[in-house]
Amino acid sequence: MAVGEGKLPVLHPVAGVRVGTTSAGIKTPGRKDLVVFELAPGSRCAATFTQNAFCAAPVTLAKQHLQACDNQPRYWLVNTGNANAGTGERGIADARACTEALVRTDSADASSVLPFSTGVIGEHLPVDRITAALPWAVAALSDSGWADAAEGILTTDTRPKGFSQQFTVGEHQYTLTGIAKGAGMIRPNMATLLAYVATDMAVEQSVLQTLLSRAVEQSFNRITVDSDTSTNDACVLAATGAAGNVDVRDLESPEASALQDALEACCVSLAQDLVRDGEGASKFVAVEVGGGRSEQECLDVAFTIAHSPLVKTALFASDPNWGRLLAAIGRAGLDELAVADVSVYLNEILIAEKGQRAASYTESQGVEAMAPEEITVRIELGRGDALATVWTTDFSYDYVRINAEYRT
Amino acid sequence: MAVGEGKLPVLHPVAGVRVGTTSAGIKTPGRKDLVVFELAPGSRCAATFTQNAFCAAPVTLAKQHLQACDNQPRYWLVNTGNANAGTGERGIADARACTEALVRTDSADASSVLPFSTGVIGEHLPVDRITAALPWAVAALSDSGWADAAEGILTTDTRPKGFSQQFTVGEHQYTLTGIAKGAGMIRPNMATLLAYVATDMAVEQSVLQTLLSRAVEQSFNRITVDSDTSTNDACVLAATGAAGNVDVRDLESPEASALQDALEACCVSLAQDLVRDGEGASKFVAVEVGGGRSEQECLDVAFTIAHSPLVKTALFASDPNWGRLLAAIGRAGLDELAVADVSVYLNEILIAEKGQRAASYTESQGVEAMAPEEITVRIELGRGDALATVWTTDFSYDYVRINAEYRT
Repeated sequence: MAVGEGKLPVLHPVAGVRVGTTSAGIKTPGRKDLVVFELAPGSRCAATFTQNAFCAAPVTLAKQHLQACDNQPRYWLVNTGNANAGTGERGIADARACTEALVRTDSADASSVLPFSTGVIGEHLPVDRITAALPWAVAALSDSGWADAAEGILTTDTRPKGFSQQFTVGEHQYTLTGIAKGAGMIRPNMATLLAYVATDMAVEQSVLQTLLSRAVEQSFNRITVDSDTSTNDACVLAATGAAGNVDVRDLESPEASALQDALEACCVSLAQDLVRDGEGASKFVAVEVGGGRSEQECLDVAFTIAHSPLVKTALFASDPNWGRLLAAIGRAGLDELAVADVSVYLNEILIAEKGQRAASYTESQGVEAMAPEEITVRIELGRGDALATVWTTDFSYDYVRINAEYRT
Repeated sequence: MAVGEGKLPVLHPVAGVRVGTTSAGIKTPGRKDLVVFELAPGSRCAATFTQNAFCAAPVTLAKQHLQACDNQPRYWLVNTGNANAGTGERGIADARACTEALVRTDSADASSVLPFSTGVIGEHLPVDRITAALPWAVAALSDSGWADAAEGILTTDTRPKGFSQQFTVGEHQYTLTGIAKGAGMIRPNMATLLAYVATDMAVEQSVLQTLLSRAVEQSFNRITVDSDTSTNDACVLAATGAAGNVDVRDLESPEASALQDALEACCVSLAQDLVRDGEGASKFVAVEVGGGRSEQECLDVAFTIAHSPLVKTALFASDPNWGRLLAAIGRAGLDELAVADVSVYLNEILIAEKGQRAASYTESQGVEAMAPEEITVRIELGRGDALATVWTTDFSYDYVRINAEYRT
């Protein structure tokens, strides 16, 4: 299952970036599972990684390499089918072997390769199959390789996700293109599963990192499928500078502002696409919490609702079960919550207020509001001006099936 | 589904307590759904209630009445089929009307009745049906009414839960008997869904409350089915004094110590019974976390594992998916967790250490360990002496079915 059509949009090439995809037969013979991004010399790279203490070997190595190459990697190397997580010291050596193989016939150092893996946890990476297939991925490198790559990074996803936008500031036209994958183990913490974004704007490193961190905070850090944080989450952003502008050094400049807008649109769109394609998803639900004393308490309420198995099974049943919403709000840990001030809306319909069903509400209104695939649950806490939105899915039979059968 | 046989043990009468059960037709015609406990004059009562801010009307009223009657209530009045939660001011009036009806022909004040409700949230209590049935419950009052009551308080539970123990201190023999209900919305916070326990020991009020709080902390506050905290949780303990001992005033006395032991055995047994009968449960899982710096961090790890949908679906599949266990440990929020120090056991089998699969471990060992209905997952954090255990279930198709269909 998945929500909506989820058609991949046109992905504009980004000058300075070539992408090549091939099949290494890592888990499933013939499936696209190996992707190489080649970045033009001098491209700068910002990144966010999972906060999970059990982070995967490629995450550890990518962080080291990013530092070693002064944030100017030449390659992103991605495999799917095997996460190379829970693999100890050998996992690091395996990831390093892959990065070394990629630059074997190249003047670049292995530290110019950032490795990424996704798939089953706890099995050793089939290094031989990956290194044997690498030349084919390199041979496939092309400006227009983004759509193939969007397929090549998938695991339990049912469809590729991408975003692309062109925008003009002053005399320069810029492009921003991104792809992402992820369907389960989705409750990113400072990063998402895997997302690759590039622009041809020239941007100074610290500005680039700030723009990325801000965008991730408003997008990938606001989604949840099942509350589980992956060991392999990573989101990287390259700025190749091929558009020919003078380096953007000021966060307040028109260029930085335009890039921030495009980047946020990209990250929010990709994050929402991840949720729409969440494992077993039959609903896409925006949980909007307003009237809080702080953004954090709005997020606490929104995530408590978004993680509640009882709310999620009610969403699966299209059941306007506002009692479960109240129960979730009530256990979100807010100090001095005045129940009488809280209002709950389904789309635009007030369903509960003053701790009970709203007088104006009828069950048939609720049933109607729950029918569409995309629903908004809105909570007004009535105790401040802060607000926050989180996006999530329902909990279905298919979620259980997919995750009970995943390793078999 | 449910784990094990779950046969109700012999429930010894407690001198000073009579129990009556009847059918009021609250949700299902003919089903036992109304229970009255009558406590002898002078019985003292300790209690713990849900911390959910959206607590139900009967919880609010029971707290008020407990204070008004100086912790010496004469009745506990329980209905199932309707939680009287999310019902606003009218909910309070409805609960009060039921307590008043119970003492209509009695010299007692309504404040001597503690009301409890469980069932659907957000619908008004059918007061007329309850008050019409009350005389039948009173007529049924009997020393040996515990087993009927254990059935009369159930909702989605598939079987009654009870515990009974007799013990001797000095020249007195004492009895402690308890019953509980609850199968979903189980992640108690300072209380469980509904549990009723009584002893014939005479115990001073503050000692009684301390003993109950300690026992609840080690039992009902250590279980989770689905991480959702009910609006109606309550656990009450009566000490009738009918055994004829001198009031227990000292927590260090042999009587207090013996009562503490019996009470903990009772609460742990009932709490585990709730989990074994958890909605859709096919496994009963003890998550033991040792080697922590504090009990709290052991609990954080244990609950993160116990709430993880990915761990729970793997348990449902009897899949020894240690990678998901590592991922859950890694996101539990522990400061400076050294991944290399963590070991993971299934029953007595070491399955992961140093961030990867244990060298000695074979998949067939894991499959064998996962086969039984009752499993222990043991985590050694390797950074201290604290430990804690939490009990939970798996996540099955039936959990989704039960909660998607509950209101229909």
